[in-house]
Amino acid sequence: MVKYLRQDEAIKIDELLFNEFKFSVDQLMELAGMSCADSIARCFPESQRVLVACGPGNNGGDGLVCARHLKLYGYLPTVLYPKQPENELYQRLSHQCRSNDIPVLSKIDECPDVDKHFDLIVDALFGFSFKPPVRPLFLPIVERMRSSKLPICSIDIPSGWDVEKGKPDDGIEPELLVSLTAPKMCAKSFTGKYHFLGGRFVPPSLEEKFDLNLPLFPGMDKIVPLK
Amino acid sequence: MVKYLRQDEAIKIDELLFNEFKFSVDQLMELAGMSCADSIARCFPESQRVLVACGPGNNGGDGLVCARHLKLYGYLPTVLYPKQPENELYQRLSHQCRSNDIPVLSKIDECPDVDKHFDLIVDALFGFSFKPPVRPLFLPIVERMRSSKLPICSIDIPSGWDVEKGKPDDGIEPELLVSLTAPKMCAKSFTGKYHFLGGRFVPPSLEEKFDLNLPLFPGMDKIVPLK
Repeated sequence: MVKYLRQDEAIKIDELLFNEFKFSVDQLMELAGMSCADSIARCFPESQRVLVACGPGNNGGDGLVCARHLKLYGYLPTVLYPKQPENELYQRLSHQCRSNDIPVLSKIDECPDVDKHFDLIVDALFGFSFKPPVRPLFLPIVERMRSSKLPICSIDIPSGWDVEKGKPDDGIEPELLVSLTAPKMCAKSFTGKYHFLGGRFVPPSLEEKFDLNLPLFPGMDKIVPLK
Repeated sequence: MVKYLRQDEAIKIDELLFNEFKFSVDQLMELAGMSCADSIARCFPESQRVLVACGPGNNGGDGLVCARHLKLYGYLPTVLYPKQPENELYQRLSHQCRSNDIPVLSKIDECPDVDKHFDLIVDALFGFSFKPPVRPLFLPIVERMRSSKLPICSIDIPSGWDVEKGKPDDGIEPELLVSLTAPKMCAKSFTGKYHFLGGRFVPPSLEEKFDLNLPLFPGMDKIVPLK
């Protein structure tokens, strides 16, 4: 069975991918974000209008890449990006969204009636390095997701969940979870409809070192169902 | 009908992707190389042993990325990389191949009987900025491809061909051509079996600006047949 990672293992694997295997963040983020878009296209082919809520770190970067690929697939994504870091990579990724005609909003107030204007929410707020509590700037977005009736797709970690302990009592309940590289322990408490693994880039030696026991990706698919 | 680009148009579009749309080489090379691997997996599902001949520039970089994705798809690629630039990007890409258990050879002499040891050759020697003649270091490789009976997959430009005028009298005859971003004029004289377009990343405004008239990529496919 596929291994569910502790937080320290996920951080270690990430470090090795960059430092030992010499991948760049650009490379892996492109593949990870694209696999999220592929999962969404597989599970929600009828949805059109997608709100992609992006956090300040790499999870948010995955969301920006996901939004761009969704646009290429014919979706109508809107990015909500309340904290846009100065970091050159994130600046470029959000510029790429804008220049692909994707609106990038900075305040939740700019999309007042989420359930009316969108068909799906992508939760790209926090990733595997998240430590509670949710910072005040992002609380209204998590709250909006919780109160929404729209399906939610969470990238790697449902926002607000503990990376290891999983869903808190008042946690959001995504319908789709896309685990990247390998699922984290919190995914064991995921009860939504679809769980996919994305990020098809793990070198065999790394997989062996951590006994990841990843499922086989079919053909040239960038995603594989985990349930 | 899809537009076939002159060399100066291809160079201009490339510049705009990096300077105006702020893509990194890492990002687009990852998508381009992966689309080559996808095309190969589509056209040659039975081939196993693939020799990927990489040149010193971005076309060679696409080849290195292609080799890595082919390995993830279950192929057994070997990279031939006679001129390995000091450039940090190419160093990383070839390191990624090696650490994914892909042999990286530096001399054609190291693979003496190509037709015996391989099922397919990937030609990633020269791209859209190629100006004849082929430099002496690469002549034996082009010669080996010409005399081989193996199918050849050329990335963007069949090596030795003029980017605009196409196949010279003694040019190689690839069975698969993967055009990236948009086909170049030389592709008009391509008479092989399969022609695919890869590199699904062109922003709509860039497509319009150059009247590229690209075909629609089906679903979430990263490639689309051009013939």
